[in-house]
Amino acid sequence: MNTLLSDKAYTLIKKKINSCEGEYLSVRRLSREINIGYSPVREACNRLSQEGLIKQLPGIGYYVPKVKEKYFTEIFEYRRVVGCYVFEQVFPFLTQEHVNILSEYNDNMIKYLQEKDIQNFHKYDKKFHLFFFNLYDNSIFTNQMNNIMDRSYYCSYKTVDSVDKKKNISAIEEHKEILKYIASHDKEMAIQKYIEHIDNNEARIKEGYYNNKLEKSLTI
Amino acid sequence: MNTLLSDKAYTLIKKKINSCEGEYLSVRRLSREINIGYSPVREACNRLSQEGLIKQLPGIGYYVPKVKEKYFTEIFEYRRVVGCYVFEQVFPFLTQEHVNILSEYNDNMIKYLQEKDIQNFHKYDKKFHLFFFNLYDNSIFTNQMNNIMDRSYYCSYKTVDSVDKKKNISAIEEHKEILKYIASHDKEMAIQKYIEHIDNNEARIKEGYYNNKLEKSLTI
Repeated sequence: MNTLLSDKAYTLIKKKINSCEGEYLSVRRLSREINIGYSPVREACNRLSQEGLIKQLPGIGYYVPKVKEKYFTEIFEYRRVVGCYVFEQVFPFLTQEHVNILSEYNDNMIKYLQEKDIQNFHKYDKKFHLFFFNLYDNSIFTNQMNNIMDRSYYCSYKTVDSVDKKKNISAIEEHKEILKYIASHDKEMAIQKYIEHIDNNEARIKEGYYNNKLEKSLTI
Repeated sequence: MNTLLSDKAYTLIKKKINSCEGEYLSVRRLSREINIGYSPVREACNRLSQEGLIKQLPGIGYYVPKVKEKYFTEIFEYRRVVGCYVFEQVFPFLTQEHVNILSEYNDNMIKYLQEKDIQNFHKYDKKFHLFFFNLYDNSIFTNQMNNIMDRSYYCSYKTVDSVDKKKNISAIEEHKEILKYIASHDKEMAIQKYIEHIDNNEARIKEGYYNNKLEKSLTI
């Protein structure tokens, strides 16, 4: 088995599906397009299908499901319930050193936003949120959150980044506020700001999604 | 691609790994043992690996990880945090009709326990717990819980069922108590009993696990 080729196919197809919502994927055509053999491409599709990013139609192939509003609601409910729980559990153990690391992630977010490098912007946003999960060390929560964050970026690639940068700046400001309350050991305010941040993220993604839908329907 | 063969291989290998903790799996040998071709078996192994039930060693094959105590702790923390949240959310909408369906599941659990059919016993236990998730309808919670329940049964196949039946009877009695408080619309007590049930399940699995470890070390 060639794991490397399959991993390469996985990364390429994952990028590709950002722009083909609602379309069918033929393994044979994908294989030609990305110039990787049939078997590793099929393995990559199986993996994407297991992760819920594409759907398998037995005997036919795969398709990229349309992202529905309900999906955003589900993602952010997960982030609210499990994210807040984990944040609350680790809060008493957070030190100034942790705050410094998180501030660095935030600085990187600013830098990449200025460079219009949205993938690295998301990378550091993910590092910020997963930091608390890694400290808490429940592998089920961490793996699931990791997956959920990827899905949520997958949605936002089509929306927030293509709409306006103000929203991303707001997210960075909200991170700073959370850090302020961690530094001053104000648990109640830190958690309140954490929840507000998740709620705002949800609103931002949903708004961008509808703007984008509108844009699409105008250009057709 | 032959999805049916791959599904069949998946089911057979999933059963097989219950009894080979810590062992290596060769795709070629598995293929011979279950009399299914190499490709569907490899696909089935990939899927089990994605689900975390086996681990891939690139270029070598797969192995069945040993179940550690931390794993149980993580599973039951997930069930406590997300399970209770979902139960609490749906509680106001639960009717006598729902209680009747859940009682039927419980009756089936009793029946299969008497017949010593532990797989069907677990099937109805899963139906009982997923009932609240299906009513709530957040696909992320439901899929994850579905997976988690399978893992938790995977652990208990080696432990609870092989040790004593009293524990399984206790679980059924606890379900009945939860149903009693749902029927009388006593939310506070229902949630308390729900949490106690998860805590007891955790204790039962952990106890069984150590008894089993002891048994194993005695027979070696």
